[in-house]
Amino acid sequence: MLHIKELTLNIPDTTKPRVVIIGGGFGGINVARKLSGKEFQVVMFDRQNYHGFWPLLYQVATAGLEPDAIAEPLRKMFDEDYEDFHFRQVKVTGINPASKTVSTLVGDLPYDFVIIATGTKSNYFGNEQIKKYSFPLKQVPDALNLRSQLLQSFEQANMIKDPEVRQSLLNIVIVGGGPTGVELAGSLAEMRKHVLPNDYPGMDFSRMNIYLVEGLDRVLPPMSPESSATTKRYLEEVGINIKLNTLVESYDGEVVTFKGGEQIKTQTLIWAAGVSGAQVAGLPPEASERGRYLVNHFNQVIGFPDVFAIGDIAYMKTEKWPKGHPGVAQPAIQQGQHLAKNLRHIIRREPLEPFEYFDKGSLAIIGRNKAVADLPKNMHLKGFIAWMAWLFVHIYYLIGFRNKLIVLANWVYKFFTYENGTRLIIRPFLRKDDIAGQEFVRKQADLD
Amino acid sequence: MLHIKELTLNIPDTTKPRVVIIGGGFGGINVARKLSGKEFQVVMFDRQNYHGFWPLLYQVATAGLEPDAIAEPLRKMFDEDYEDFHFRQVKVTGINPASKTVSTLVGDLPYDFVIIATGTKSNYFGNEQIKKYSFPLKQVPDALNLRSQLLQSFEQANMIKDPEVRQSLLNIVIVGGGPTGVELAGSLAEMRKHVLPNDYPGMDFSRMNIYLVEGLDRVLPPMSPESSATTKRYLEEVGINIKLNTLVESYDGEVVTFKGGEQIKTQTLIWAAGVSGAQVAGLPPEASERGRYLVNHFNQVIGFPDVFAIGDIAYMKTEKWPKGHPGVAQPAIQQGQHLAKNLRHIIRREPLEPFEYFDKGSLAIIGRNKAVADLPKNMHLKGFIAWMAWLFVHIYYLIGFRNKLIVLANWVYKFFTYENGTRLIIRPFLRKDDIAGQEFVRKQADLD
Repeated sequence: MLHIKELTLNIPDTTKPRVVIIGGGFGGINVARKLSGKEFQVVMFDRQNYHGFWPLLYQVATAGLEPDAIAEPLRKMFDEDYEDFHFRQVKVTGINPASKTVSTLVGDLPYDFVIIATGTKSNYFGNEQIKKYSFPLKQVPDALNLRSQLLQSFEQANMIKDPEVRQSLLNIVIVGGGPTGVELAGSLAEMRKHVLPNDYPGMDFSRMNIYLVEGLDRVLPPMSPESSATTKRYLEEVGINIKLNTLVESYDGEVVTFKGGEQIKTQTLIWAAGVSGAQVAGLPPEASERGRYLVNHFNQVIGFPDVFAIGDIAYMKTEKWPKGHPGVAQPAIQQGQHLAKNLRHIIRREPLEPFEYFDKGSLAIIGRNKAVADLPKNMHLKGFIAWMAWLFVHIYYLIGFRNKLIVLANWVYKFFTYENGTRLIIRPFLRKDDIAGQEFVRKQADLD
Repeated sequence: MLHIKELTLNIPDTTKPRVVIIGGGFGGINVARKLSGKEFQVVMFDRQNYHGFWPLLYQVATAGLEPDAIAEPLRKMFDEDYEDFHFRQVKVTGINPASKTVSTLVGDLPYDFVIIATGTKSNYFGNEQIKKYSFPLKQVPDALNLRSQLLQSFEQANMIKDPEVRQSLLNIVIVGGGPTGVELAGSLAEMRKHVLPNDYPGMDFSRMNIYLVEGLDRVLPPMSPESSATTKRYLEEVGINIKLNTLVESYDGEVVTFKGGEQIKTQTLIWAAGVSGAQVAGLPPEASERGRYLVNHFNQVIGFPDVFAIGDIAYMKTEKWPKGHPGVAQPAIQQGQHLAKNLRHIIRREPLEPFEYFDKGSLAIIGRNKAVADLPKNMHLKGFIAWMAWLFVHIYYLIGFRNKLIVLANWVYKFFTYENGTRLIIRPFLRKDDIAGQEFVRKQADLD
């Protein structure tokens, strides 16, 4: 048996300054791309071997796309034009600023500069029961698992005796009214209308209820009140049950109880309610606030000039963004690109340039011709034009990301038709042994 | 928690004859398609919710294709034009000819005709150790698991200290020189030459050894000696180590020992050495021979006029095929179509027509411009023309199967370029806890 202790990082020695990037998300890949050249040795660590285009992850969960449409192997992204770039699929266990080393599962590596670009993880606010029974939507395996859960629920709803249990299979509760929750709800509504009635001719999908639960008083709280109001109307038009000002008290895998006492029986609770920074051990508590690293305008973690944080894990307080930048792709991309420039300044002993966020606006999609956009200068779009803007932006970024016209054509084709051909039930992990229906799944697979 | 006992099959009552089809493979879908109409109620059971184009499964294992390119949801295949067709994703536990019922995990169903189209499963010849440690290649999750294992091995080989352990990660042993083993070996050789050196610039892939082990004295034993000889030459040209007349004695997850005593250290043993019929409980032993159901020329199981078997699970002895038809897609497809005709004859009290297999020949691919074909009348093709024939046949069947030009274009594009974009490590099942590197995988995923 191969033990971890037999592994080593195997990074070549170098006389160039070594930049260690922790995380291959939007921030990590952009700083790595811009550092390409002869000046640095770049080492990237990630637990996964791929970069994900996470804004479309919900499409994997609703069987609209396969993982390869939204994820790209990191080794492939950095394979040819990137000299002295080294990827290792390994988990980072800590940073040691005193010795200037990064610790991983398989050994330590000295750094000259380390960039924390680890993003966020699901936040269950300490509720272990919810963590155990709910379905998160942060990673590719999560999306595949949720997809299997949804399809399996329909299969079982089609075979259940007790109407009350059937209803609990047909009740989908999404907790969290941010972009993930809203786009997932919209996509499930389209599935309910256009796909499922064909697949399950004997079933009455008017009984399928999609609940969207939000603790604040509006959906899409990071967007403008105008877009929130439009989104709420769109969601209601496609038949989503919205519960605002509602917090989850508990969920035991069968019944979700809200603060206030209301209950819904559901076998599928999707947790999109919050994230917290995926922090790395080794920096003192005063370097963080609310789970994010406090950084100056050069993305340096306060007190540690050789340690940088970018993207969702960074907390840069500016006059315009006193609570930090929004937790979306753009700040991560821009900070990554900007930091590469500043690292060059550092080794050339030039003055650093402060980061300034260029807000391109934000978008959310609910369904065909139903989208909202907040643009700079307080402009708001909705309806067909916002939908076209959403498509354009996503196609534009996917072109850069995938660089493959035919894959893109395939994506557009799948997106515009309702020919979702990917409704395959393939459980990626059976890690939740006691969730609904697992007895059935396990017996089907002869795993018992 | 939802228990199996709360489920029921929920098939509507009918006055039409009810045909129960067990299995949604090539045989099952073809009989179901041809039975479409007003004369029968058709019920199909399968443990998976999809039909797979298994001749291309090895492409999923070598990251050439994603599962959706080779698998199609059964509900989608039969969604619109098929009246009174009922699919249930449920495991069949037995047939009771006395009561004319089929038993499933969730209840029994009376039948008028039952068609066993369950195909084959991996045969480990009773060796539990090999079953535990080797990687099969029969199902979509198998292929995804093998893909992850291969990619993970390369990641680890890149980080290993001990050169001997590194070599055991770079030794891939395929047991079984039939079509699956040969095509997988060829595909791995292409990966080694065109893909891996770009992905792992620091690694020396001339050290990656691909062994193909066959118990008989030639590869592709079902094909002609001419094609076997050509295939052997092709495999050697692309650097496959072929071991003929070699049987596996044991494999403990680290070392494979052959009968005769030779040993190879490998972390990845792929088991493509044999299959046995996936039989269903309930028929007496005399209805079977070598794990397959003995059927007459109408595919009726001997002694049970209402029980039919088609495809790999059927053993029809004919003058031309005394050992039964070959275990490939064509006999299953043709028997399925033919049986539908005979079922109509039965209910119309017309005489039955005996099945006659139209042998279209067989094909295997080793690499670009390297393929072999045995055609009727003892004709053999090889090289570019056989390769074109292989492409044409697979494209032809995929068109019928997927009915989507753009998906097909995508497939052809991926096939012809080396732009395999699907090298994502997503373990579908962590069911082998003690195989090589699982400690690492589990710790990476925080599963411990």
